[in-house]
Amino acid sequence: MNSLAAPKLWDKGYDVDPRIQRFEVGDDLTCDQKLVVSDAIGSVAHAAGLVKIGLLPVETFQLLRAELAHVVDLAEQGEFQMSSEDEDVHTKIENWLTNTLGEPGKMIHTGRSRNDQVVVDIRLFTRQAILPVYGAILDACEALLDLAQRHATTPMPGYTHMQRAMLSSVGVWAGAYVESLLDDLTLLDTAVALSDQSPLGSAASYGVGLPLDRQYVSDLLGFAKVQNNVLYAQHGRGKFELAIVQALSQVMLDLSKLAQDILLFTTSEFAFFSVDVSLTTGSSIMPQKKNLDAMELLRGKVHVIAAMQQQMLTILGGTPSGFNAEYQDTKRPFMEALDLVESSAVVAALNVSQLTPNEEKMLAACSPDLFATDVAYDLVQKGVPFRDAYRQVANMLDDLAEFDVQAVLAMRTHQGTSGDLRLDVSAEKIAERRTQLAEREAELAAIAAGLLDGSATGLPVGAD
Amino acid sequence: MNSLAAPKLWDKGYDVDPRIQRFEVGDDLTCDQKLVVSDAIGSVAHAAGLVKIGLLPVETFQLLRAELAHVVDLAEQGEFQMSSEDEDVHTKIENWLTNTLGEPGKMIHTGRSRNDQVVVDIRLFTRQAILPVYGAILDACEALLDLAQRHATTPMPGYTHMQRAMLSSVGVWAGAYVESLLDDLTLLDTAVALSDQSPLGSAASYGVGLPLDRQYVSDLLGFAKVQNNVLYAQHGRGKFELAIVQALSQVMLDLSKLAQDILLFTTSEFAFFSVDVSLTTGSSIMPQKKNLDAMELLRGKVHVIAAMQQQMLTILGGTPSGFNAEYQDTKRPFMEALDLVESSAVVAALNVSQLTPNEEKMLAACSPDLFATDVAYDLVQKGVPFRDAYRQVANMLDDLAEFDVQAVLAMRTHQGTSGDLRLDVSAEKIAERRTQLAEREAELAAIAAGLLDGSATGLPVGAD
Amino acid sequence: MNSLAAPKLWDKGYDVDPRIQRFEVGDDLTCDQKLVVSDAIGSVAHAAGLVKIGLLPVETFQLLRAELAHVVDLAEQGEFQMSSEDEDVHTKIENWLTNTLGEPGKMIHTGRSRNDQVVVDIRLFTRQAILPVYGAILDACEALLDLAQRHATTPMPGYTHMQRAMLSSVGVWAGAYVESLLDDLTLLDTAVALSDQSPLGSAASYGVGLPLDRQYVSDLLGFAKVQNNVLYAQHGRGKFELAIVQALSQVMLDLSKLAQDILLFTTSEFAFFSVDVSLTTGSSIMPQKKNLDAMELLRGKVHVIAAMQQQMLTILGGTPSGFNAEYQDTKRPFMEALDLVESSAVVAALNVSQLTPNEEKMLAACSPDLFATDVAYDLVQKGVPFRDAYRQVANMLDDLAEFDVQAVLAMRTHQGTSGDLRLDVSAEKIAERRTQLAEREAELAAIAAGLLDGSATGLPVGAD
Amino acid sequence: MNSLAAPKLWDKGYDVDPRIQRFEVGDDLTCDQKLVVSDAIGSVAHAAGLVKIGLLPVETFQLLRAELAHVVDLAEQGEFQMSSEDEDVHTKIENWLTNTLGEPGKMIHTGRSRNDQVVVDIRLFTRQAILPVYGAILDACEALLDLAQRHATTPMPGYTHMQRAMLSSVGVWAGAYVESLLDDLTLLDTAVALSDQSPLGSAASYGVGLPLDRQYVSDLLGFAKVQNNVLYAQHGRGKFELAIVQALSQVMLDLSKLAQDILLFTTSEFAFFSVDVSLTTGSSIMPQKKNLDAMELLRGKVHVIAAMQQQMLTILGGTPSGFNAEYQDTKRPFMEALDLVESSAVVAALNVSQLTPNEEKMLAACSPDLFATDVAYDLVQKGVPFRDAYRQVANMLDDLAEFDVQAVLAMRTHQGTSGDLRLDVSAEKIAERRTQLAEREAELAAIAAGLLDGSATGLPVGAD
Repeated sequence: MNSLAAPKLWDKGYDVDPRIQRFEVGDDLTCDQKLVVSDAIGSVAHAAGLVKIGLLPVETFQLLRAELAHVVDLAEQGEFQMSSEDEDVHTKIENWLTNTLGEPGKMIHTGRSRNDQVVVDIRLFTRQAILPVYGAILDACEALLDLAQRHATTPMPGYTHMQRAMLSSVGVWAGAYVESLLDDLTLLDTAVALSDQSPLGSAASYGVGLPLDRQYVSDLLGFAKVQNNVLYAQHGRGKFELAIVQALSQVMLDLSKLAQDILLFTTSEFAFFSVDVSLTTGSSIMPQKKNLDAMELLRGKVHVIAAMQQQMLTILGGTPSGFNAEYQDTKRPFMEALDLVESSAVVAALNVSQLTPNEEKMLAACSPDLFATDVAYDLVQKGVPFRDAYRQVANMLDDLAEFDVQAVLAMRTHQGTSGDLRLDVSAEKIAERRTQLAEREAELAAIAAGLLDGSATGLPVGAD
Repeated sequence: MNSLAAPKLWDKGYDVDPRIQRFEVGDDLTCDQKLVVSDAIGSVAHAAGLVKIGLLPVETFQLLRAELAHVVDLAEQGEFQMSSEDEDVHTKIENWLTNTLGEPGKMIHTGRSRNDQVVVDIRLFTRQAILPVYGAILDACEALLDLAQRHATTPMPGYTHMQRAMLSSVGVWAGAYVESLLDDLTLLDTAVALSDQSPLGSAASYGVGLPLDRQYVSDLLGFAKVQNNVLYAQHGRGKFELAIVQALSQVMLDLSKLAQDILLFTTSEFAFFSVDVSLTTGSSIMPQKKNLDAMELLRGKVHVIAAMQQQMLTILGGTPSGFNAEYQDTKRPFMEALDLVESSAVVAALNVSQLTPNEEKMLAACSPDLFATDVAYDLVQKGVPFRDAYRQVANMLDDLAEFDVQAVLAMRTHQGTSGDLRLDVSAEKIAERRTQLAEREAELAAIAAGLLDGSATGLPVGAD
Repeated sequence: MNSLAAPKLWDKGYDVDPRIQRFEVGDDLTCDQKLVVSDAIGSVAHAAGLVKIGLLPVETFQLLRAELAHVVDLAEQGEFQMSSEDEDVHTKIENWLTNTLGEPGKMIHTGRSRNDQVVVDIRLFTRQAILPVYGAILDACEALLDLAQRHATTPMPGYTHMQRAMLSSVGVWAGAYVESLLDDLTLLDTAVALSDQSPLGSAASYGVGLPLDRQYVSDLLGFAKVQNNVLYAQHGRGKFELAIVQALSQVMLDLSKLAQDILLFTTSEFAFFSVDVSLTTGSSIMPQKKNLDAMELLRGKVHVIAAMQQQMLTILGGTPSGFNAEYQDTKRPFMEALDLVESSAVVAALNVSQLTPNEEKMLAACSPDLFATDVAYDLVQKGVPFRDAYRQVANMLDDLAEFDVQAVLAMRTHQGTSGDLRLDVSAEKIAERRTQLAEREAELAAIAAGLLDGSATGLPVGAD
Repeated sequence: MNSLAAPKLWDKGYDVDPRIQRFEVGDDLTCDQKLVVSDAIGSVAHAAGLVKIGLLPVETFQLLRAELAHVVDLAEQGEFQMSSEDEDVHTKIENWLTNTLGEPGKMIHTGRSRNDQVVVDIRLFTRQAILPVYGAILDACEALLDLAQRHATTPMPGYTHMQRAMLSSVGVWAGAYVESLLDDLTLLDTAVALSDQSPLGSAASYGVGLPLDRQYVSDLLGFAKVQNNVLYAQHGRGKFELAIVQALSQVMLDLSKLAQDILLFTTSEFAFFSVDVSLTTGSSIMPQKKNLDAMELLRGKVHVIAAMQQQMLTILGGTPSGFNAEYQDTKRPFMEALDLVESSAVVAALNVSQLTPNEEKMLAACSPDLFATDVAYDLVQKGVPFRDAYRQVANMLDDLAEFDVQAVLAMRTHQGTSGDLRLDVSAEKIAERRTQLAEREAELAAIAAGLLDGSATGLPVGAD
């Protein structure tokens, strides 16, 4: 028996070369640690399903359920730890059940495979883990919305091509990010909904020769529906997680742009905003430095999630049908992507909430050239065709007078500009999402509790 | 005047270095050629909006509208061609209007920028160009569904890890792809819906000091709504197209897997299917070769679209707010992705429709080891705990009897297996989508026609 | 016979479905057009090799050689065009030879396959096409070197984290890019050298049962050596091109950073440099705009080449041994990468050569905080441990005196700073590379000429 | 003082928000743990350099050196652990020195920055960590070479397009991978050589106003040369590591293809090879399964390294000059890439060494169609032009006789085929590399030892 070998579910009397095992397990155990609770909950539902079709005595079910509830307790206290000896979370838990309960432990795997177990685990994990991601993104929305509301009409030069373009406002700038993030969430909703299908019953990829009641188990777990075709259920591995990461990459795109803006607008040269010193870090050599490291990192993180989505998609691409081992390498990028987006949104919210506009500096940057288009429109109002007006102004750029910034800003009246920002629409959307989020949290807690204490199954707790 | 210089909208009396112009225009003109009709339609709506707020006389509008309708006619006949002299489609069309109509041409650009023009053009293009993509994916679904229906219970070994796993059927195999593609389309729906917002009025990125009626123009163009914040409207450039490409990458993932399966299952060694010779190509050296080049290419195309999504996301990442020139480099990958998915789905449909199962070969591949799990379940039914049953069977693999494949298949009764494939659900979804697709085509045609003949605007065709 | 069907080398009496053919050929013909000359030259050498082993009469060789020289002439005049009917360049040329010469055309393909033909074509193409890429990168080096030489000690604030860090000079800034590009070229050298192996004789992937003299043919073509293992020769397809693109991605990384610097340093807020107006483009709406579009595009192009390398690597990844059709999809990104880097370097050189430092602005940006570290070093020189000195200065940042910038700069004496930039080392490297480049051009021209006029083969031009 | 705050080098009396610190440190500490030894060695050399220019008393140097040697001892015993309180390895070590030695600890940072420290650390780490990577790749080469030698002329069908193409041999197949890996190593050599430049003295990015002797420090550390331009030294961060990862991606490409071949050739349907059971893993549901999980994972790992290179390149792309914080996110992918390639090569070597060819099966797969080209060549030898011969054979495919496989194989005589594999050339290259590797190991050990015991510096160990 080699040193890496905890009992394997498929043990057939030979040892795996330890170098192979290390290569296969890699850092996957760290990911599997996050699946303990999901695996236990999924197992309770699966076992209840076996009772339903007469393949498991109800008292055996109750023993399993109680022990799985115990595992969940231990896990929540950090006392159910994967070790390098364990092949994976599914093995760890089945071994645990067999060690503590004996025969019942050997019965729980009837009609399922680790293949469908990992898929259901990831989906149960996902629906829970996505909630704080939503929460953090809403935090960022609120911080931005608050800034936009406070400075809806604070003048700020608008830039295109990194050059001064036209007059804008802090409200327009911050509000743009709010709306973008809210739209991202609709993409995320669809991806999360796709993942709300129960794969249980797909087994290795081809179902089993037992009369499983897949709908019953799906309902117990609170899934929106059964993922019908058993082979497709397996093909969803990695694919559905990818869909979520793709939606999240849109969030990171916004945050990356926001970070670049903050970095640019807080340079000594722009100085449009200052940031609280508690958000900066120093240099080991230069006493004067107060760097916005977190914003630089945030700027780059879009490329980190881009690499994650890339890895997930290309690993899956070109693999033949049925489960393939490399699907495993979609797990870590997925889990890390959730953490990445959550922490990124938290940090973005924090930075935005600490941004102080330097109104004087922004006003000073509203140089006459910023108003060249407005001059042309004056000519248009007097009947000059726009293209002619444009050329006239282009020839008198050096002679443009100073502008009354507030007067020009007052003319930004059409929808989506500082005069009509419609921030209330965004505020309502955020509030609605907050409510939904709280409801979903409660719903998931109730499902888990009902399974772990057995009440959801309607099965007698006591004797047969 | 250098040789590359057609008149530019921003001409100020100096020439751009021709090397710079070549670098900037690149192959973007090929893309812009596809935007001619959209640009014309968008321009009609914009012009009507100017009439609405009193910045354009109605008769000038009618001149512009008629000439833009003429441009559309020319374009549809392939007679409105971009040349290397043209900076872009917007310049080409404004120049055309000025050349043919004089003053009216100089008036159309009031209150807009090429920045919001290109965004609206791409969205109008997208909503049209996405329709045949949907159509081709539905073709692939139908070809797969038809195969699944004809061979729902034709026995086929199911593989995991490229090794024989458990008994399956051709219906399970083909049906998996149908359901996967249909789910992909829900992702696509959301991405396409996101793009259904009118950016017009965002101008350079910051709106204008004119009382534009953005809602009116949006309604004329049949958009679902105005994209409110003007800066966000610009940040949608590339970002919304990326969302569509991300959804399409899921389609390519399925097709890539399908292609790999077809390649594997048509090798001499597997020989589960044969393909019509008209889908194969030969070798210049080996007289016997009939290669499925198209399936090999299809297998690899997921990596092509992966690179496209990668390029789009990383180009946008880290750019500061407001329009930036490199957004242009999201255009070609987007347009090519649409073509890629459409042609890939067409080719997949064609191949699937020509696949002939070799039932004898598949049956022969149903070797005894494929039924090891079924043997274990027999023991389970007799009361042996599964894990013990598993180990017993593992020790008697060499002694497994031949199996009655049809009898075993008959036990695959639970949802999602050959006994309960629910292909009718997919059939209904496909039919529903076909109807919606036809309706959308008609709707878009009516919007375009109404703008080009002016009837949609309700403005008098004749005198002031 | 369908409309897409020009005669195919492998014609066996059936037609390929035109949708399949379109999918397979795609835009590959545009790439193949660039391979006409290489294919012809490679064919002459191959034919000479057949003469050497007695499989081709010398007079047949001379007929083929003369006609291939004619093809090269036509191609160089733009009169040998691939059309959508042609399957590929190899087919086009064999058909041409058979149409013009009859039997000899049917004899040239003995002992080769299109598989090894395309590999040799790409390598012959590469060794030629890489020369202007080197040239353009050297142009960029020279422009940067010139700037560095002219402004070696022009003071410029050095930035880290986008914040003012320590005093630097224009020479340090520009010189950094010169050295980086020169180091990139050593990476490129190795990748190009890897590609300098003759694959001819590998045939379909497994060699042939004929006594080919691979070394003779390799020598005729001027390759450094034969790529020995025939299967490896095929696995080099795409792989060697990828190595070149990976090296080139390093060049694009430098140019992207340079572009971002130029964009930042030419904002109104920094204004460290101005650029000649001929390198800028305008806005259709804002009369004042002079945007550095080319630099923005350049900034983003690193992501374009990143996507190219990604596509090439992931397409090849996971494919089984022997030729696979999707290798074709490495061709376009490779060829486009060469063009991209060449034009990018040209544009970078052009911009750098037109950059005018605004010395006054840079001096003004040398604010007291830039010298905080220098103050700390003053304390260190007086015996204060650095970390204590650092903290003292950190507490007196508001009281830092104005600095004599030139005096501080004069203390930058150690290697690699403005006082010891060693630009001459770079100058010498550039000069050496220029010489090598010219020599290589001459060498390749001589090889081609010797093959096309037959002199290199030493075979009699006249009778048997 | 918040709970995350160990003393920071740049402490100025304010606390960083703990959420910011967590975001910035992330999992970077795990990476930094691997840099402890390098940081200590680099610090000894830096300190010696300060002695050289009179900025550090020699006895202070010796105190620092001795304590740094102590740190190395602790680290090698696993007793110098980074904790979540530590900002990074540089801070940890400077704090350690100050805590244990007092004033000397505060003096070591004179004339350097963490920026150049991390760069030198990574390069010192790289030159050491790359050695076992070379070793493992050579192991894989040897395993493949051994297989090729033992089965140089064992007949095996050669495949193209996943279809039987022409006769080949196991030697050709295995030998192809040997040559490919050896060529990859030449790419790796250049990338590793690029990294062999000392960045010390570049400080924050712009050097310092102290007369550092960069050459002296570089020589002490055994670098091939000083990286001259100080700003370029910083731009090398991530960039040089990327060059190494790009070279390594070529290795992974080979291994991925090898893995796919092994998976395909060990299916029940091909059955060309069998693998020792100790390299397989089982299924939790199917008793018969013996999966080659490790080969599946290996097949996919090329996409993992592709994502790493992608992340590194795109994070760096578009960042302005001078150090930027997101460079940090190139560290983990780089370090993981080294581990990935090493473990992948180990696993590949192991699998290849356990591959048993099934000669009978391969012979049976040498069906008549495999010899169609040979039949055509028979006709060519009789004077039929190849293209005519090809067509004749294409029309008689059903009538091809059985072939004497050994006789046909005997005709594969030209270079690179089974008759002339030149495996000895590869054997010599491997042996040469083994020698170089051992020499380099010894050399690096001597450099480290000489610095840590002070002997390399030539400075008196005792009094002033």
